[in-house]
Amino acid sequence: MQTLQQQLQHKIDHTTKPLGSLGQLESIALQIGTIQQTLQPAITQPHIVVFAGDHGIALTGLVNPYPQAVTAQMVLNYLNGGAAINVFCKLNQVALKVVDAGVNADFDNIQHPDFIQAKINKGTANYLQQPAMTAAELQQALEKGKAIVAGIAATGCNCIGFGEMGISNTSSAALLMHAFTQLPLEACTGRGTGASDAQLQQKLATLQQAYTIHQNNLQTPQQVLQAFGGFEIAMMTGAYLEAAAQKMVIVVDGFIATTALLAALQMQPEVQQYCVFAHTSGEKGHAQLLQWLKATPLLQLGLRLGEGTGAALAVPLLRAAVAFVNEMASFESARVSTATS
Amino acid sequence: MQTLQQQLQHKIDHTTKPLGSLGQLESIALQIGTIQQTLQPAITQPHIVVFAGDHGIALTGLVNPYPQAVTAQMVLNYLNGGAAINVFCKLNQVALKVVDAGVNADFDNIQHPDFIQAKINKGTANYLQQPAMTAAELQQALEKGKAIVAGIAATGCNCIGFGEMGISNTSSAALLMHAFTQLPLEACTGRGTGASDAQLQQKLATLQQAYTIHQNNLQTPQQVLQAFGGFEIAMMTGAYLEAAAQKMVIVVDGFIATTALLAALQMQPEVQQYCVFAHTSGEKGHAQLLQWLKATPLLQLGLRLGEGTGAALAVPLLRAAVAFVNEMASFESARVSTATS
Repeated sequence: MQTLQQQLQHKIDHTTKPLGSLGQLESIALQIGTIQQTLQPAITQPHIVVFAGDHGIALTGLVNPYPQAVTAQMVLNYLNGGAAINVFCKLNQVALKVVDAGVNADFDNIQHPDFIQAKINKGTANYLQQPAMTAAELQQALEKGKAIVAGIAATGCNCIGFGEMGISNTSSAALLMHAFTQLPLEACTGRGTGASDAQLQQKLATLQQAYTIHQNNLQTPQQVLQAFGGFEIAMMTGAYLEAAAQKMVIVVDGFIATTALLAALQMQPEVQQYCVFAHTSGEKGHAQLLQWLKATPLLQLGLRLGEGTGAALAVPLLRAAVAFVNEMASFESARVSTATS
Repeated sequence: MQTLQQQLQHKIDHTTKPLGSLGQLESIALQIGTIQQTLQPAITQPHIVVFAGDHGIALTGLVNPYPQAVTAQMVLNYLNGGAAINVFCKLNQVALKVVDAGVNADFDNIQHPDFIQAKINKGTANYLQQPAMTAAELQQALEKGKAIVAGIAATGCNCIGFGEMGISNTSSAALLMHAFTQLPLEACTGRGTGASDAQLQQKLATLQQAYTIHQNNLQTPQQVLQAFGGFEIAMMTGAYLEAAAQKMVIVVDGFIATTALLAALQMQPEVQQYCVFAHTSGEKGHAQLLQWLKATPLLQLGLRLGEGTGAALAVPLLRAAVAFVNEMASFESARVSTATS
């Protein structure tokens, strides 16, 4: 008897096209069918969830050219529909939720159907002085991330991508990548929103110092997240864990989103089976991180914006992958001859 | 005073995102705005036109594992909605037209709103014996290609991609690429729909023989098209010329579609300004041909199906490129701080 995976492959191979000629869309179709355990895979009510959080290190000015206030300003921009992720979600019919995971601003008065208040604290602590968050804060962030995804899954969504906003969060991401992969910190540290050469050198020196301070307390993925944060990253880690538990198709965005995944994979390696990698970011570190994960991303557009923009842009390709399996004629039904060899 | 291109760049740079962070979508947005001479670019009623034609060489069995009858069978499959291009066009809201440019079958009885009868002849001649088509046939093919595009432009379409179907047409394409670029024939010759190693060797030897026969009559692009065909390729060449004349955004599909473009560029190099390159095909030759054209394609999915499938899959990215320019907030309007450096 054929396994479901064999049956899916048979179905893919018998659509009216040369064998293998839809390339990566064929492997994506096989993966989605396997996740969903069906010969009729579907992308249903896809969502992007953007987690926003602030970082204590940002207030030092050592790692970022933009002021910390931009995190809160961009949250308002998302809620007003003016950011790139709004445009791409609307265009591609993807639902968008915005989560305050720990922004250093007061959002108590915001009433918006797509806003989720889940603030752990008003920004993390500065990791040059202490761990970015306490064990209790980390636990809370992971749990809230799980609860948010469980709530979205309950509405009928089976495909989810995670984005982030947080001034200085490429610094957290670089430290996480370094801690989890042991690749050189220099290979993990990029320009973020646009550091100059001098700013990049200062950022690297600062992160090296931060790593040295915490290096004896990085035995578990929890300790790594606690040391370097941020709240938006830790909440996203919880979100990945729950999305896999819910057997959702997970669309992995860029550099920061992939380091949050890395933390989740340290806890539960099987999460990766649910992941489709949307794109290779232009941010230094991401290409090497994807290689380390043996991941083959769908898009290479030089995006380095975050917010889940790469994930939103990849959704039409996921829809195309499931559509060809469901809708194409077979050689038999269309009476098309096969190769004579 | 700023040129339109400078004004477009200014608009792109002042949307709420780090400078340059939308990567290739930014250059596409700039290109489309420049083609359309507007700060509000738009993708309106995009179309894919699939040109189908047969090749005399196919009847020798020397270059293709599939029988020639598949060309006609696939035309019927397109009209019945069962092929990959149908699925992707429907999914991405792209209109599809299917053109009989020279299929070796009788389609006189077909009445279908998306079918265009433009048959030049029932397949080309075998280029091992004579030129694939006469000068009159070539002229007719170019003219019909132009007329078809002019007709579509008149309906309000401003974005068009061309696909093809024709058993043996990777052989024509390899010969065209070799003739126009002078890259080694071996580098231009791939497996097409799926030739084995032995079949590939036989294909290459056959194409070498064909090239030798005609090599003293390849002074003009017209002579090259006449020598190696096919009707679907020549008609597509005319289609590219007209699409540029109509100032349409042209979405260039895979290997064969790019060699038809190559012929058009030999006649009018400025056509390339209107071209967005959809993807790098898995068919050998295409990556090198794109390099030769200094083209940066949007997708690298290992597709090698033809039919315009890569072009149809790229349309959502073109829509994303124009949408971010038109719909994103500016730093000023969203009150988002800019970099402090």
